[in-house]
Amino acid sequence: MTDAMIPADRWDTVAIVGVGLIGGSIGLAMQRRGLVRRVVGIGRREESLRRAERHGAVTEATTCLSEGVADAELVVVCTPVADIVERVRQAARFCRATALITDVGSCKAGIVRALRRMPIGGASFIGSHPIAGGERAGPEHADSDLFVGRVVVVTPTSASDRGQVARLTRFWESLGATVLEMTAPRHDRIVASTSHVVHLVASALAAATAPAELRLAGSGWRDTTRVAAADAGLWQQILSGNRDAVLKSLDRFERVLLRFREALERQDTVGIERLLDAGKKIRDTLGN
Amino acid sequence: MTDAMIPADRWDTVAIVGVGLIGGSIGLAMQRRGLVRRVVGIGRREESLRRAERHGAVTEATTCLSEGVADAELVVVCTPVADIVERVRQAARFCRATALITDVGSCKAGIVRALRRMPIGGASFIGSHPIAGGERAGPEHADSDLFVGRVVVVTPTSASDRGQVARLTRFWESLGATVLEMTAPRHDRIVASTSHVVHLVASALAAATAPAELRLAGSGWRDTTRVAAADAGLWQQILSGNRDAVLKSLDRFERVLLRFREALERQDTVGIERLLDAGKKIRDTLGN
Repeated sequence: MTDAMIPADRWDTVAIVGVGLIGGSIGLAMQRRGLVRRVVGIGRREESLRRAERHGAVTEATTCLSEGVADAELVVVCTPVADIVERVRQAARFCRATALITDVGSCKAGIVRALRRMPIGGASFIGSHPIAGGERAGPEHADSDLFVGRVVVVTPTSASDRGQVARLTRFWESLGATVLEMTAPRHDRIVASTSHVVHLVASALAAATAPAELRLAGSGWRDTTRVAAADAGLWQQILSGNRDAVLKSLDRFERVLLRFREALERQDTVGIERLLDAGKKIRDTLGN
Repeated sequence: MTDAMIPADRWDTVAIVGVGLIGGSIGLAMQRRGLVRRVVGIGRREESLRRAERHGAVTEATTCLSEGVADAELVVVCTPVADIVERVRQAARFCRATALITDVGSCKAGIVRALRRMPIGGASFIGSHPIAGGERAGPEHADSDLFVGRVVVVTPTSASDRGQVARLTRFWESLGATVLEMTAPRHDRIVASTSHVVHLVASALAAATAPAELRLAGSGWRDTTRVAAADAGLWQQILSGNRDAVLKSLDRFERVLLRFREALERQDTVGIERLLDAGKKIRDTLGN
């Protein structure tokens, strides 16, 4: 499971705040690998906590955050991005001073900036973003191998304790991930183009298709618009949370699109093929 | 295999001009269903004809079109779109007067217009477009079930012989497809938005991603840009061949994109969510 040159840390108690696909997969992955004794799931809806328990993603569950994080050495906040700052602050008030708190939000700069000043002598917060997920939400789709071979970005600041950064890195590595460390603003600039604008464009493509036209939609349309099926509320938070970088990345996309339009308008077949070939070259570097 | 209320026609000899994934799949599908005795593959490259033979997609192969189509009752032209008109004209000169000629090109109006005047008393041409394909090209990926459950558009004109239209419809149905009949311009307007602009946008998205950013590209980026890996030369022909409809459909996409941009710029979270939700509603109607 883990390719541990440094042995993976074992934890007594881990708290997962928000037990959906990602939170549930973390709980399941840690248990399957024998890395934890207790996984406490914390959520607002009893019903989804029950599903997480039934699926084995957590060993116990509570709707009370202060109680749920009390014994945790590691707290992972997996809520929608707009709730993360508040949940981390609450967790920090009630968990041990030695605890490590992280999150899994898709935009990081706003969160890291808001949480720069944590209570003196209290728990450490360091941001994380696992580049993993799936089309299906909910703890019942939790997968103990969701992070295997995936990249997790961690975004410490200059004030972060390097021991805690190393501990967070080992945590993600113990689930099979590769960890990349970078600043939160750099992370946000990159995911604006690899994820957020991609999502926005896929959604615009879907919305620009008339329902009556869908009978002629094939696998190309399906693949290209697949992410548009994701939760609109969650993605509004992500796009809004990374607004400046998204707008800059959108500029870049629109410039390429304009070159396509101009080449088509002037019937420049060589230019069109060159543009398609540039896209193909980038796409081919990743494989299917 | 076929849900034939009207029994499927059986053919003695079918000629496939251009034996790639689509042409090869037609040959394989007809043979597996016992619908044909001889499938003659016609191509320019000996090597790909040999691969088609080895894969069982054709029963014989030749680089000589006049010879290859001589005995055919059905000729299916599966070449890149820019070559279709010329290949149909050649086939019509050398095949029987009773033969039915069709193609599988992704844009139809230009082809149908150019072929409106076929030699008096000669073979009939009626355009087809199977909404099927795959990421992998070449006859070695031919699949006898490629058309099962797929839509094939056929685009007769007011001058088309209705008996031949019915024959063409039965042909595609015998391979498991559902046939939709519409005019070529209407087909082209629809596929401009369900396919051609989708392709252009996916390519622009890929091209707008810097190679160094790809380490943070997840399944969303992969799905959304997948079609950008297709052959640039073939797609240049398709985009150029359907230029006017593509530009109009691009207008429509850009108007939606502009609404996203404006909502983001004015931090209109309700507006962003509404736009995302409109995309999700369309996407959800198709399922995964």
